Amino acid sequence: MPTLILVRHGQSQWNLENRFTGWWDVDLTEKGVTEAREAGVLLAEKDMLPTRAFTSFQTRAIKTLHLALEGCNRLWIPETKDWRLNERHYGGLTGLDKQETRDRHGDEQVHIWRRSFDTPPPEMEAGSEYDLSQDPRYAGIAVPTSESLKLTIERVLPYWQSDILPVLASGEMVIVSAHGNSLRALVKHLSGISDEDITGLEIPTGQPIVYEFDGAMQPGERRYLKEM
Amino acid sequence: MPTLILVRHGQSQWNLENRFTGWWDVDLTEKGVTEAREAGVLLAEKDMLPTRAFTSFQTRAIKTLHLALEGCNRLWIPETKDWRLNERHYGGLTGLDKQETRDRHGDEQVHIWRRSFDTPPPEMEAGSEYDLSQDPRYAGIAVPTSESLKLTIERVLPYWQSDILPVLASGEMVIVSAHGNSLRALVKHLSGISDEDITGLEIPTGQPIVYEFDGAMQPGERRYLKEM
Repeated sequence: MPTLILVRHGQSQWNLENRFTGWWDVDLTEKGVTEAREAGVLLAEKDMLPTRAFTSFQTRAIKTLHLALEGCNRLWIPETKDWRLNERHYGGLTGLDKQETRDRHGDEQVHIWRRSFDTPPPEMEAGSEYDLSQDPRYAGIAVPTSESLKLTIERVLPYWQSDILPVLASGEMVIVSAHGNSLRALVKHLSGISDEDITGLEIPTGQPIVYEFDGAMQPGERRYLKEM
Repeated sequence: MPTLILVRHGQSQWNLENRFTGWWDVDLTEKGVTEAREAGVLLAEKDMLPTRAFTSFQTRAIKTLHLALEGCNRLWIPETKDWRLNERHYGGLTGLDKQETRDRHGDEQVHIWRRSFDTPPPEMEAGSEYDLSQDPRYAGIAVPTSESLKLTIERVLPYWQSDILPVLASGEMVIVSAHGNSLRALVKHLSGISDEDITGLEIPTGQPIVYEFDGAMQPGERRYLKEM
């Protein structure tokens, strides 16, 4: 039975500091490392052993994948990294903590950005401290200057259709290690969640989410592996 | 300029215990982890930043790759794993330490196995403790029962030709994280070392070896990165 396992990376340094991270490449905290390892142990305990892996271009998701695969003795499976699984790009908010954002943009505007499906944050200024458009990692890629959740979905879903779904349909057990918003994109699609509801749906860090697919590649219920 | 970087995995648990390991999947020691990290730091210091990675199906080489890539902020590059980069299969010697091997097979025989280019060790018995022929990792692969260095070369070189060389020829900086004997296979080929001499050539753990290729894809001198 084709099975999809989604894992949001463990706690990162900027999750801890409550700063907008987006495409900025921060590392896992010690807690994040532990969360990732524990996800792997849970996969082994539940005998949910991935045969193919996908992740983003970002260290925190790649390391989460590696630690989880090591925890279930599956480091050897093929893995594919793609920028289209990256976190939502927070544009000019990148690097700001909650208080700095409020001080700079006001409570009301922050609330809109936080809850809106299709309002992107202000654009990142070219050459700013967190501008990655010249990073060799993204050579040949049009790095966004800012993304709403809607824009994030518009790059995640085509990748899902073209690269992940065919692998899954061939009967593999696929693990995707990614980010809060790239995973929201997948969960919205697979569980049929509305534009209004998806922005309020929290994807917990390091907790594998499982979808099993039927013969017509229709996904079943969304379940937490720990509850299976 | 197409550049090839070879890294032998850091110290493993059975390197430490002086046991024949071969295809058995032992982990790195703490020292091995440090060696792998330091290899990555050296890559960064020398500005030798890989753009493509190849490794074996074995945890010690995969982890060495990941730690080295993390050390030079290149975890995001594409990586390919293939069993043909695995260590030489030590057959019935797998798991034995030096003393056990001598006690069981005699000094003279051990010397022959250690120094011979084309005499394989005794075959692994099917169903023995270290038999991996039923391991899901090797599904669809005819797991050897024993390999000489010659037999190892006979599966490493076709993979080199078909999968690694074309990537290198496209101008990439390729890192290969592998094992003492799969790397001997490559070094023998690239540096034109004789059957007699190759068995005595030691590849040190965690020390990146560099070959630069000319426009006709002829390899230059073999050099240690630390001396470049």
